[in-house]
Amino acid sequence: MNADILKQRRTIRKYKTTDVPQSLLNRLLQTAAQASTTGNMQLYSVIVTRDEAKKRALAPAHFNQPMITAAPVVLTFCADFNRFVKWCEFRNAKSGYDNFQSFLAAALDAVIFTQQFCTAAEMEGLGICYIGTTTYNPDMIIKALNLPKLVMPVTTITVGYPDEMPQQPDRLPAEAYIHEESYNDYDKQVIDSIYSPKEALPENIGFVKENNKETLAQVFTDIRYTKQNNEVFSVKFIETLKAQGF
Amino acid sequence: MNADILKQRRTIRKYKTTDVPQSLLNRLLQTAAQASTTGNMQLYSVIVTRDEAKKRALAPAHFNQPMITAAPVVLTFCADFNRFVKWCEFRNAKSGYDNFQSFLAAALDAVIFTQQFCTAAEMEGLGICYIGTTTYNPDMIIKALNLPKLVMPVTTITVGYPDEMPQQPDRLPAEAYIHEESYNDYDKQVIDSIYSPKEALPENIGFVKENNKETLAQVFTDIRYTKQNNEVFSVKFIETLKAQGF
Repeated sequence: MNADILKQRRTIRKYKTTDVPQSLLNRLLQTAAQASTTGNMQLYSVIVTRDEAKKRALAPAHFNQPMITAAPVVLTFCADFNRFVKWCEFRNAKSGYDNFQSFLAAALDAVIFTQQFCTAAEMEGLGICYIGTTTYNPDMIIKALNLPKLVMPVTTITVGYPDEMPQQPDRLPAEAYIHEESYNDYDKQVIDSIYSPKEALPENIGFVKENNKETLAQVFTDIRYTKQNNEVFSVKFIETLKAQGF
Repeated sequence: MNADILKQRRTIRKYKTTDVPQSLLNRLLQTAAQASTTGNMQLYSVIVTRDEAKKRALAPAHFNQPMITAAPVVLTFCADFNRFVKWCEFRNAKSGYDNFQSFLAAALDAVIFTQQFCTAAEMEGLGICYIGTTTYNPDMIIKALNLPKLVMPVTTITVGYPDEMPQQPDRLPAEAYIHEESYNDYDKQVIDSIYSPKEALPENIGFVKENNKETLAQVFTDIRYTKQNNEVFSVKFIETLKAQGF
């Protein structure tokens, strides 16, 4: 079988109002659960949000991005050691999973599960979009979804039947991210060659102009992903992680 | 298209000596790069290890698991803000990505990329295995692969043509990890119902006996994933993360 179908994918941000049947969603989640997981512990949970009021409760955590309320289904994927630790408690086993390494293992499991679900969903004609704000306001998500200790939201996706067919976004050339045998660091010449096709795209030239910036990189550093935000949300994430018992 | 092919997958730990052509590997990695990435920043790198001496250099970081030296290809997937920050430097943009939130975004990108590669590889007849020890000894991997600051190994996989057809491992029933609208915590009855099929498997009964334990959970807590190891490797990971500039 050829993997080119994965190359044709694109993120979908606009969905038809058609419902995503629960039976389909559950079958696709079960399919995704066959992906790799640390020691077959399946250290994840997914919270399915369909209810309008629940979507509105989640929206502020995602800075009220309209997709949260507009998508038929919102899925919040969590690193989950709660279930496993409860099992240990009921089986006379003294667990030691209240630490960062355990969070890491569970977060890896959760992201592998998420991505495998996305691929399964796309194979069956659904569209998905990752919502990156999940790590900014985990405390608000925990409250909205009633997550107990040892459960930490890691990523969120919106799901629905596509109501758009956007252009595929550009990607860096393969030599940008593949290193043979050891890491080959980048000098100015390589950076120029890797990034200039992206910088030359009309939409990116427009992006720089609209934002009154000199370079595309400045749009990222000064507007989209600022040092100040990164630092505020780093502190918040680490505090929430501790509050959740990791 | 039906997603059932993803349900048929299994982890492969034994590989033919047949080489994995570089052109195939690069095409599959490029296919995987079409997966979602934070703000289209592609905050990842992959280090391809084929050289015998390089595999031997990596092996101790993975507690000398034989797969590292036996597999034709070892791929180390890294959260990488180094490339992006170098681009910012050469474009007069003042970056602020030396923090935990930036590591998180890059780690998410890296795992999504990894899992999409695994699926692409499996579609084309290759087999993969995740090597969970990557987060235990990141410092040793950094040294072996010459990773600069703002590059952190997140996960490793071995790749090759399958030389085995193992049974598919069991998975928890869907109700174990799917929560409708809000998190439904687990009581003893639910834990019993979720975990007893797993506990009743002959290989798990054998596992408990061989290890002189009372319950399967004790095999995890006392032998496979101990509190002491988790705590030692938590400290090490956080120290390495700081040393790498995050």
